Amino acid sequence: MTREEALRGRQRALLETLPKHVLVIAAGQSRLRNITSLAYPFRPASSFLYFFGKMPPGTIAVLAEGSSTVFIEEPAKDDVLWHGPKPSFEQYRAACCADQVKSKSELITFISKFDQTDILALPTLDPVTNGELRLVLDRTVRRDGRDSTLINVIISMRLYHDAFSLAQVREACEITSRAFERGIAALEPGANERKVRAEMEYAVGEAGTDLAFDPIVTTCGEVLHQTRCGADMSAGEMLLVDFGAESSEGYASDVSRTWPVSGKFTGPQKDLYQLVLHVQKTAFALAKPGIEFKELHQVACETICQGLIDLGIFTGDPQELARRGAHTLFFPHGLGHLLGLDVHDMEDFGDAAGYAQGRARSEEFGYSALRLDRVLERDMIITLEPGLYMIPALLKDSQRTEPLADCLNLEKANDFLEVRGIRIEDTVLITEEASESLTASIPKEISEIEALVSA
Amino acid sequence: MTREEALRGRQRALLETLPKHVLVIAAGQSRLRNITSLAYPFRPASSFLYFFGKMPPGTIAVLAEGSSTVFIEEPAKDDVLWHGPKPSFEQYRAACCADQVKSKSELITFISKFDQTDILALPTLDPVTNGELRLVLDRTVRRDGRDSTLINVIISMRLYHDAFSLAQVREACEITSRAFERGIAALEPGANERKVRAEMEYAVGEAGTDLAFDPIVTTCGEVLHQTRCGADMSAGEMLLVDFGAESSEGYASDVSRTWPVSGKFTGPQKDLYQLVLHVQKTAFALAKPGIEFKELHQVACETICQGLIDLGIFTGDPQELARRGAHTLFFPHGLGHLLGLDVHDMEDFGDAAGYAQGRARSEEFGYSALRLDRVLERDMIITLEPGLYMIPALLKDSQRTEPLADCLNLEKANDFLEVRGIRIEDTVLITEEASESLTASIPKEISEIEALVSA
Repeated sequence: MTREEALRGRQRALLETLPKHVLVIAAGQSRLRNITSLAYPFRPASSFLYFFGKMPPGTIAVLAEGSSTVFIEEPAKDDVLWHGPKPSFEQYRAACCADQVKSKSELITFISKFDQTDILALPTLDPVTNGELRLVLDRTVRRDGRDSTLINVIISMRLYHDAFSLAQVREACEITSRAFERGIAALEPGANERKVRAEMEYAVGEAGTDLAFDPIVTTCGEVLHQTRCGADMSAGEMLLVDFGAESSEGYASDVSRTWPVSGKFTGPQKDLYQLVLHVQKTAFALAKPGIEFKELHQVACETICQGLIDLGIFTGDPQELARRGAHTLFFPHGLGHLLGLDVHDMEDFGDAAGYAQGRARSEEFGYSALRLDRVLERDMIITLEPGLYMIPALLKDSQRTEPLADCLNLEKANDFLEVRGIRIEDTVLITEEASESLTASIPKEISEIEALVSA
Repeated sequence: MTREEALRGRQRALLETLPKHVLVIAAGQSRLRNITSLAYPFRPASSFLYFFGKMPPGTIAVLAEGSSTVFIEEPAKDDVLWHGPKPSFEQYRAACCADQVKSKSELITFISKFDQTDILALPTLDPVTNGELRLVLDRTVRRDGRDSTLINVIISMRLYHDAFSLAQVREACEITSRAFERGIAALEPGANERKVRAEMEYAVGEAGTDLAFDPIVTTCGEVLHQTRCGADMSAGEMLLVDFGAESSEGYASDVSRTWPVSGKFTGPQKDLYQLVLHVQKTAFALAKPGIEFKELHQVACETICQGLIDLGIFTGDPQELARRGAHTLFFPHGLGHLLGLDVHDMEDFGDAAGYAQGRARSEEFGYSALRLDRVLERDMIITLEPGLYMIPALLKDSQRTEPLADCLNLEKANDFLEVRGIRIEDTVLITEEASESLTASIPKEISEIEALVSA
């Protein structure tokens, strides 16, 4: 499946699903940084990318009456001097695979031909673009209003990866794999976390793509999203790396590994690492079409409880412990999430993609961080990312530990404090048979890691 | 001068200059990328950084009645799990050197104590923050309204770099210098532009700071702001690099070099390179307190005209040629700009900083791109960045070339087409005696460059 086949096919499918409507999808504008001539690197909104690929800031697509029209801002005076010759409208049309490309100055006239009540639009995360849509449509575009019809159709398409999307996620995973190769090679007691991160980002820069998210490269593994980076690493510590590149067309990847800085796991590190790895393998083996993701999460929680029983941290029955939420003391997040054009795919629509229709996020601690609650189906891409964390804020919180006084050996848990945090995460494609790890080439067995770091 | 002395001193000075007013300075919010949990790397607005340093998104400072109060958004529930323990209010207070720190929830009550007509606020480039200010102040904050009083006072402070600011710009220049070292070492026929860029960004990543602007690393030197990067480099080409790191506190640097990919300049490359270098040295020698920057720009234009006469591209008198704007065919931009917390310092205030009061930007081609029109004074930091470009869009535009038919040898100019573009730029401090290049350690003599690339 070529890029053109993919983009045209998706545009057709959307037009055919909502034939009576006029559909407005905006790329968004650049977000300014500190002065008007300096914006953050522009990336179109993911749903725009899904149908039209990378186009300039300000582009707005309209699908109506069986045809797609893309409206492009005309370059400013002298733009050719500063940014070079722009593609022609025909070149833009070929690039975005639309039926026609017009000047943005024609948008309002074009839109006004239609009955306003037929128009559905996607909200964006860019306030400037939302303001523009408000002017053009004379109403506010909202996730929860009538536009949710369009959102739900797009979700039902993006949930299942076509061959082009899959090839893109594979590309992102390959770049990420090179990044992990460079990263582990830079591991060394006394070196700074930033050096590992710079090595990993080098692989992304060399590939000419962007990061899919703010990476985590930290010896403070117990902080789940520790994006601060800058400590010198010591021999006894572990480095938790959660990193993903984007592909050339903006698709994500997401991988976590946890490495011993010295190249050798300590006893407690090894114990917890083996447990996390075992949980991940158990979940991976079960990740098949037809299973509820929440069930996978549940199995992971119970497996963690069993492992912590084996290590003397818990006593009792693993299922009962999981039912009581005992695992959330050490594993307070969800087992994984959807992945596609976004690392948490379609989370700009809230939980509309991650949660099946009619389901809502629990407020219970632990489950409240579960980003995915759907039956797994073929061609979905998800992450599987169990972790174990020794989080002082939880272990010192008597409101959390006291209800578990009968089954928790806090003293034993404290023996593992130095391990701080371990997460093992892969990007996984659900196939008819079972599932395929798209990031299997990144080593995670203890023996492989020890061999690589020591090399 | 310590950081604390600098920040407290600046807060005091501002309070003393506008003692009757209530001054509101916002850091701004994170700009979202593709999903709500993923923002671009947050950087507070430069004027906020100037007085309070790096603080979390959403922070707003109020200076009133001789005292500075900083309002901070309280962390969300479970924030400690995801992002680790937050500093206490007292730690934040010490970090931003304010008199007091309060919760953002107290801001509206705090502000409502004051007479609304006494309040001056800074507009930001973040629409969300501007919307918040509109709610808090019950009016729109605008650059050209009453708030310009505050803007002008801040400009009069930021124009002159104190010891802390200078030390920060020096730090940024040092990181940039390491980046250029890595970049030139990666130069090699057949390698991709991205490799050079990745090497240079590595130096910034290793230092743990950010880029001051979207870098230019291109063999298409004739495109003035060619931020696209990804071509394979060939032996006969030159690579134009315009790159600057930020310092730890967010101060900028800005340097351009143009390197022959093969390590050896061709004849025409050498001719034009020597001319640009000569122009830069001429301007540098004249850059002293008391001189009009526009006069420097004028000298640069005339020197370019003289050089192009020597090369047979122009005939006639250099001053007369410059008066007619002949140089703009090959040098269509300005000689430089202010630099500080922004690479084009304070350009979020339009031309209010770059242009002395009462002056306005010319609409004439060439001069319209001049970002600085002031008398140079001690402690200002500027860039000096002459360039020569063979721009097809200009050379093929008969509206530009025909008026110069009597003095332009277009055929001769075409002999230099392959040179494409050369820019040589340094970050320069104006001192009492003369001026100091803060980026002098980055080689720019032909012999040095040839030795480095060949090494």
